[in-house]
Amino acid sequence: MGALPVSYTHLDVYKRAALHRSRQRLRRLGTEGLALQFGGAAGTLAALGDKGLAVTEQLGRELALPLPEAPWHTHRDRIAEAASVFAILTGSCGKIARDVSLMMQTDVAEAFEPAGAGRGGSSTLPHKRNPVAAAAALGAATMAPNLAATIFAAQVQDHERSAGPWHAEWPTLPTLELVTSGALAAIVDIAEGLDVDVARMRANLDTTHGLIMAEAISMALADSIGKSEAHHIIEAASRTAIADKKHLRDVLAADARVTAHLDTARLDRLFDPMAYQGASQTLIDRLLGSLDT
Amino acid sequence: MGALPVSYTHLDVYKRAALHRSRQRLRRLGTEGLALQFGGAAGTLAALGDKGLAVTEQLGRELALPLPEAPWHTHRDRIAEAASVFAILTGSCGKIARDVSLMMQTDVAEAFEPAGAGRGGSSTLPHKRNPVAAAAALGAATMAPNLAATIFAAQVQDHERSAGPWHAEWPTLPTLELVTSGALAAIVDIAEGLDVDVARMRANLDTTHGLIMAEAISMALADSIGKSEAHHIIEAASRTAIADKKHLRDVLAADARVTAHLDTARLDRLFDPMAYQGASQTLIDRLLGSLDT
Amino acid sequence: MGALPVSYTHLDVYKRAALHRSRQRLRRLGTEGLALQFGGAAGTLAALGDKGLAVTEQLGRELALPLPEAPWHTHRDRIAEAASVFAILTGSCGKIARDVSLMMQTDVAEAFEPAGAGRGGSSTLPHKRNPVAAAAALGAATMAPNLAATIFAAQVQDHERSAGPWHAEWPTLPTLELVTSGALAAIVDIAEGLDVDVARMRANLDTTHGLIMAEAISMALADSIGKSEAHHIIEAASRTAIADKKHLRDVLAADARVTAHLDTARLDRLFDPMAYQGASQTLIDRLLGSLDT
Amino acid sequence: MGALPVSYTHLDVYKRAALHRSRQRLRRLGTEGLALQFGGAAGTLAALGDKGLAVTEQLGRELALPLPEAPWHTHRDRIAEAASVFAILTGSCGKIARDVSLMMQTDVAEAFEPAGAGRGGSSTLPHKRNPVAAAAALGAATMAPNLAATIFAAQVQDHERSAGPWHAEWPTLPTLELVTSGALAAIVDIAEGLDVDVARMRANLDTTHGLIMAEAISMALADSIGKSEAHHIIEAASRTAIADKKHLRDVLAADARVTAHLDTARLDRLFDPMAYQGASQTLIDRLLGSLDT
Repeated sequence: MGALPVSYTHLDVYKRAALHRSRQRLRRLGTEGLALQFGGAAGTLAALGDKGLAVTEQLGRELALPLPEAPWHTHRDRIAEAASVFAILTGSCGKIARDVSLMMQTDVAEAFEPAGAGRGGSSTLPHKRNPVAAAAALGAATMAPNLAATIFAAQVQDHERSAGPWHAEWPTLPTLELVTSGALAAIVDIAEGLDVDVARMRANLDTTHGLIMAEAISMALADSIGKSEAHHIIEAASRTAIADKKHLRDVLAADARVTAHLDTARLDRLFDPMAYQGASQTLIDRLLGSLDT
Repeated sequence: MGALPVSYTHLDVYKRAALHRSRQRLRRLGTEGLALQFGGAAGTLAALGDKGLAVTEQLGRELALPLPEAPWHTHRDRIAEAASVFAILTGSCGKIARDVSLMMQTDVAEAFEPAGAGRGGSSTLPHKRNPVAAAAALGAATMAPNLAATIFAAQVQDHERSAGPWHAEWPTLPTLELVTSGALAAIVDIAEGLDVDVARMRANLDTTHGLIMAEAISMALADSIGKSEAHHIIEAASRTAIADKKHLRDVLAADARVTAHLDTARLDRLFDPMAYQGASQTLIDRLLGSLDT
Repeated sequence: MGALPVSYTHLDVYKRAALHRSRQRLRRLGTEGLALQFGGAAGTLAALGDKGLAVTEQLGRELALPLPEAPWHTHRDRIAEAASVFAILTGSCGKIARDVSLMMQTDVAEAFEPAGAGRGGSSTLPHKRNPVAAAAALGAATMAPNLAATIFAAQVQDHERSAGPWHAEWPTLPTLELVTSGALAAIVDIAEGLDVDVARMRANLDTTHGLIMAEAISMALADSIGKSEAHHIIEAASRTAIADKKHLRDVLAADARVTAHLDTARLDRLFDPMAYQGASQTLIDRLLGSLDT
Repeated sequence: MGALPVSYTHLDVYKRAALHRSRQRLRRLGTEGLALQFGGAAGTLAALGDKGLAVTEQLGRELALPLPEAPWHTHRDRIAEAASVFAILTGSCGKIARDVSLMMQTDVAEAFEPAGAGRGGSSTLPHKRNPVAAAAALGAATMAPNLAATIFAAQVQDHERSAGPWHAEWPTLPTLELVTSGALAAIVDIAEGLDVDVARMRANLDTTHGLIMAEAISMALADSIGKSEAHHIIEAASRTAIADKKHLRDVLAADARVTAHLDTARLDRLFDPMAYQGASQTLIDRLLGSLDT
């Protein structure tokens, strides 16, 4: 991690933490959410005489499923909760994939999916490294919300036997599981082989000619001349930097109102992105710590 | 409860238990799920200098929100979980409302929403008691799955600032909350005043001419002549009862293969729905017990 | 048709007309909506030299697809229109199936899906004829809206090559087509063999003790005593009929304010549902006429 | 238009054509799709005596709505078609907005939404021009598919009176119309003031060091040495160009297998993107022509 600019590590542990929260949701689903459903024709276990509850318990043991208080055949909130856990995980995979596909753009080129024979390449457009895994996860994230919506809609069932909604679950829940599994596999693939171009990341930061550090300079200057005046000076200097295609530091270094309070060495330090990280390291450590739970 | 046929009480505690499971989901959302989001322009709290974490803690206390490990602005799984909890609750309300609207049909007439001045009546069709609250809950349950789907879809956000998906949450999440709240209010209204016609429920059971007890008779007969033979006899007798518009008991009472094992008094007892409840009472007690947690 | 009560014929031609409107949408899709997509790596046909347009035309002929003005690879409105046509048709099938499943209820028993060996029956609950085809169509109608939503969502594609949304179409559009096809097959099955119990329909009408004719009586009485007074009398009489479990005709026949204007023979005619059809026959003829277009 | 590189003009007329197809769908909706609904309590117009059809016609004239064959209160395919037309238009707006937001990225910087006082700027991050209108359209395109799904789902209505689904239409259809209208307004705003940086577009094309022209070179070389051999040579040269960070032209100019067939002047021409446009101009003219219909 030490070799990576903090900005990327920062993103990364955020992504890992999002996936970890979904892992915790999946775990809870297995231990509490998805309970055995077994009830007979009318949900009374009557056809089993006085053995209904014993059979229920034995079945739960064999299937390793938690026992519910009672059969729940047409109350599908547990199934809907499962669907939502899958959809949320797929959504997190989609968010990660979006970022990767944005970084893989030819004009950005900060990170790339792992290369491989016949993978993501194009002989027609050989400069491209297509986001193959990211596309899979983004496709999944386009589908999952609506598959989950079908499961939610199927909660509205007639009395003790659904005529239709239940049947809508049959193809939909397995499809949602496949889609979720596919999204997760794609993200694992990305996570295991993401090819990060640290130099390009830093170069891209530098293309803004120091403008990304405007807030840092403004805060430092505010210590001397107050927030409002500092904000005013930096905003005007930023406009000048953009209009004249100059580096913001050069504009500021030529402004006596600034140099009166921030000398050249101080300005240089303020323009180092690595020196304006706020609480990032603490936040990263906390997120890393949470992954063990 | 003793005065109601078990079949209805049975439904009722199932419905209450489904709502209770949603109450537990809502509670978990409040204590764990929905954590404070506070991070500044880049999620680093940098503009607050060394006070970022202290401000975060104070803000969490004032808003009574759990603290997250770190800001999570573009990782929206927590928001998606909230949306899913609302949608699942609305789905359970829709299921309850469906049952009520089915029972309110003119041809069924087993239960009715509370009457009231100007409510659900029709001067053009004065025999109707329209399912006003149930319609509200069913309308909500038609909307909620797709409102939740929008929130899931909005998880796919660009880097540290969403261009669009985040904005889709703004009108959608409050609408989902209103829809959920409306569905729940409608169900509370129904629950507090449902007008159950016990006599009609029993009369409707009797219109099947004993056929609903076919399983019970078949199980009793199986004790003497085996499952397969019992099933065969009852199935044929059921067909005869339907074709000849006779009560199943009368068909069976004329069949020596049956009367050899089940005398008239036994047959009469077997045709009492109250005597074929399986584990219902235990299941009901368990569900009732779960409501306290 | 003459043998059926108008009320059912009326429903029926409405259903057929709804399906016919979807047939017209499907036709338009075939002749205009779904045009050939062929454009090469960048949509310019450049790799075909000067033969691009000729190849396009020949391909359109061979696939019998209308030619677009230009390739449209990442503008998916045509695909979204196809999805919407499928979803709308499935919705109409769902509406028809809902009505059939409501009529098949044990307590209503007005119409039944065609019976068949092993179809929709239950040996445990032999009185039931389960709505097998209706359940299939209702299941489809639960899925189709959300499958179409995925196709709509997939319109948002990146530049000239989609990373994800396009891939979401691949499994979704064929699934939507299967679901639509299944819904339609179920409705054809129902339409070809629906078993209507005309006597029970009429008996169910009669269970309201004349209350369904309240509007007709009120209109007739209004000719003599004005709308407001007529409405007032009929509303009070309806309440009496419900409270005393009497036929509305008997309540009215004992009310001199009514009999002064409507004698017994007139009252009897007014309580005949077949005599209060409004413009039904004209509307039915128009709908039937529209089916030929 | 002459001043813009064809690649952008090409995108532009494609976008306009997509919007135009939606305009045609909206027109058809106005003239055919959305017909008057007027039918009275049971859809028979009976309460109007023999004036039902005349009142219907007059009402249609006053509301300037096409007349249907008959009332259609619980057959909602027309409403569903309207919703789909809105959702498809919003989807096309979302696609346009996605492209704009991608072009506005700091690292791409090819086009920008119109600037304006207080619009899309950030004093904290002054280098950014945030995609304000594009975000609005993308937010709308995140919502519209699911609002349309609710309308589709609401097609499944009970008999002649819906208990719930119809009510779900009430808030949803107006919201969908607002969302569509907002998306379209955002795109109009973009279309009227998009600030295109032609020089940056060309510069970005050049950053691929000629690799985007690989197909063009390969086709030209194939005329002399066959497709397979040409493909093989260009693919290897492309890998070399990437690995050595050289321009593809320089790699090819050093390869005798290439220069034997393509001299320097020819190579230079082949690397001009403006010379490899295929049928673009014809396609553009066709699309422009279609906008008048």
